[in-house]
Amino acid sequence: MRTILIIGAGRSASSLIKYLLDKSESENLQLIIADKQIESAKKLANNHKNAKAIELDIFNETQRKEAIQQSNIVISMLPARFHLEVAKDCVNYKKSLVTASYISKEMQALQEDVVKNNLVFMNEIGLDPGIDHMSAMQIIDRIRDNGAKLLLFESFTGGLVAPESDDNLWNYKFTWNPRNVVVAGQGSAAKFIQEGKYKYIPYHKLFRRTEILDLKEYGKFEGLANRDSLKYRKVYGLEDILTLYRGTIRRVGYSRAWNVFVQLGMTDDTYIMEDTENMSYREFTNSFLAYRPHDSVELKLRHYLKIEQDDIIWDKLLELDIFNPDKKIGIKNATPAQCLQKILMDKWTLKEDDKDMIVMMHKFGYEYQGEKRQINSYMRILGDDQTYTAMAKTVGLPVAIATLKILNGEIKTPGVQIPITKEVYEPILKELENYGVIFKEEKVTYYGYNPENIS
Amino acid sequence: MRTILIIGAGRSASSLIKYLLDKSESENLQLIIADKQIESAKKLANNHKNAKAIELDIFNETQRKEAIQQSNIVISMLPARFHLEVAKDCVNYKKSLVTASYISKEMQALQEDVVKNNLVFMNEIGLDPGIDHMSAMQIIDRIRDNGAKLLLFESFTGGLVAPESDDNLWNYKFTWNPRNVVVAGQGSAAKFIQEGKYKYIPYHKLFRRTEILDLKEYGKFEGLANRDSLKYRKVYGLEDILTLYRGTIRRVGYSRAWNVFVQLGMTDDTYIMEDTENMSYREFTNSFLAYRPHDSVELKLRHYLKIEQDDIIWDKLLELDIFNPDKKIGIKNATPAQCLQKILMDKWTLKEDDKDMIVMMHKFGYEYQGEKRQINSYMRILGDDQTYTAMAKTVGLPVAIATLKILNGEIKTPGVQIPITKEVYEPILKELENYGVIFKEEKVTYYGYNPENIS
Repeated sequence: MRTILIIGAGRSASSLIKYLLDKSESENLQLIIADKQIESAKKLANNHKNAKAIELDIFNETQRKEAIQQSNIVISMLPARFHLEVAKDCVNYKKSLVTASYISKEMQALQEDVVKNNLVFMNEIGLDPGIDHMSAMQIIDRIRDNGAKLLLFESFTGGLVAPESDDNLWNYKFTWNPRNVVVAGQGSAAKFIQEGKYKYIPYHKLFRRTEILDLKEYGKFEGLANRDSLKYRKVYGLEDILTLYRGTIRRVGYSRAWNVFVQLGMTDDTYIMEDTENMSYREFTNSFLAYRPHDSVELKLRHYLKIEQDDIIWDKLLELDIFNPDKKIGIKNATPAQCLQKILMDKWTLKEDDKDMIVMMHKFGYEYQGEKRQINSYMRILGDDQTYTAMAKTVGLPVAIATLKILNGEIKTPGVQIPITKEVYEPILKELENYGVIFKEEKVTYYGYNPENIS
Repeated sequence: MRTILIIGAGRSASSLIKYLLDKSESENLQLIIADKQIESAKKLANNHKNAKAIELDIFNETQRKEAIQQSNIVISMLPARFHLEVAKDCVNYKKSLVTASYISKEMQALQEDVVKNNLVFMNEIGLDPGIDHMSAMQIIDRIRDNGAKLLLFESFTGGLVAPESDDNLWNYKFTWNPRNVVVAGQGSAAKFIQEGKYKYIPYHKLFRRTEILDLKEYGKFEGLANRDSLKYRKVYGLEDILTLYRGTIRRVGYSRAWNVFVQLGMTDDTYIMEDTENMSYREFTNSFLAYRPHDSVELKLRHYLKIEQDDIIWDKLLELDIFNPDKKIGIKNATPAQCLQKILMDKWTLKEDDKDMIVMMHKFGYEYQGEKRQINSYMRILGDDQTYTAMAKTVGLPVAIATLKILNGEIKTPGVQIPITKEVYEPILKELENYGVIFKEEKVTYYGYNPENIS
């Protein structure tokens, strides 16, 4: 039996563990599922004979080292900031490690030791980052191997509600951490490059500069720029590319309505408001509007942000009940973002039978033998239920598949890495297809952003 | 002879030193003017027989202690972060201290030692903070002493260009630190209270929610909210006041045009742009606009921010030359705010003969014997030249006057304090009148923000 230690039995571990348990007989696997809350671990172990749930506090050095020492390979599904101690132990006890998190500087610093010990430390192998890396690099490598030159690469991912569970005007529900959704895009400007020109969008304009994405049979969506589209420019080998853009996917119309919250200042997470515990939703909304007792909060907001009464934005705001004088925020010392999150959670929390959906789209523009061409690649996957969600599948399955392939020596190039080499992405993408992660490709006319070559 | 040690011979020390030198014969004063650059100190000492310039590095403990020990009282005109070491020495050698800076926590922590040694540590006695405290508290105390109840207090200050030197469309020039002007208002939302309701304005709306101020013979101005209007609520004893608002004064129309820079993202100081050294003003502007090579940068900007071609905003932008393809930013690794500052400094730097202007306005609403009333108080002062600017006078003279009055025992209540007691503000305001700091008062009808008492 080969022992796989899985640290962290949170929401994203369900599909991961199911995959490995389903293969445990044929592959001789014993899973140790470790969590601070042993109940979470037990639930996922599901009394399977090849799974053992243990209680593990990763700050307990003895416990942690013992568990790692006894395993053949380690998966860390902990929040990224907790990986490092696990990673150091993995080096000491010569165990390979798999995580779905961004590589930290500290993780990267282990490179020499990892290579010396012939270990694979695979990171960023979830959904985004993860499936995005693999599915993009597969086509980028193919284009380059054909001798073509890449001109444009755009990549978008979104976690949304499945169409069958989509029953609100925003076409959105929280399928992951609500907080991240409320504060998304904040901080310094979104930066990207178009036709060789650097472009910067400040946060308060981000939701007005979206791009419409046509995912054919899956419908139209909108993409809004991520903070740093240039992050993987060098890693992907796209130093000379003219257009590089990464974004987040929402249903068309979401961003225009969300912009109301941004403009009002409701998404701010940097200061605490007065008396949020006793504040009504209406008072919360009113605190961002001028004092004018003759006018209703509704009229003041419409006037301030120039929203027509028959604009769908208005219905979206009403649906969220932001003018309700009776509902209370009920949180002490809350920031505007925390108050807004409370209001949204009333309406955007998944119901028991609701399913989620992941969509991803890449655009590749390139020049081949003097001719400009474009390939669009897109994927959609639905959740099965609230355990095996699309998010849990797309985050967990690549981790599980990678782990088994490292264990079996199919992925073997040592080092602290992300899944951008053929050795890694080819077999994993192939197997992911069996689980519904299927990319469709279409060839479209390449226009770029400057078809007439205006200089 | 009594020795006054003045540490820091920067721009704001000119009027301060002139005041003390003019009184040095009659008051038996010897000034030690200390600066890291002895040339600056020498310039202000101006070969006066009662002034001595010394080179002083305040991080040189021996030098610093020796200078403080030999003085009778100390003025620190250093940036606020450098006061603390000076203040501690002042406690040790039992010298009173005067600064124009905000009281830091560390300064406040000296309170017990300062009182025990019967010293006066007077802070925030410049313009803003300083003259604003004194002129407001004089009227607040008078209203309260009459048995009236304060309902509203609004206070505005601005450093502007004098009318005779006002020759651009913005009616603005840099009369102080340009950087502070460019990043003004950034960070968390502006917070204030109106008729008992807390209000919050996010930065990207700040310049669209101004208040028009009528300074009668001096003209109309606009006020925009400071970050924290509630800072002095408790200190002024206004815990129960319904409306409390503090703001910055600009000429009418400035904010509406400045909002263009805010909306574009040009005032952001949190990230570094690509290749700012070789970037033209036009490229800088274009980097905040969508890539659309068919349209000019001008048209894209007008379309994006919906600026009509005959709007005065447009002329203001043209005047600043932000579309110039030949002028270069020429600064390495600059933030947007640093680039914008460079562009503005071409046009907004004071010319040799230009004069500056300080304006201040307070509004006091109160209820007296069942009747609601309002007093407006306002002040304007012009600079004499580029040495004895309005800013140098209003920052330096209160410091100088306070210092002499502490030295003469006229201000004697010990402690770490700000000028909000009658003992301090009465004699200082009276003397300031001789130097042109004259507040005019008018009684106006009190409306408040809810004259019809709508609840």
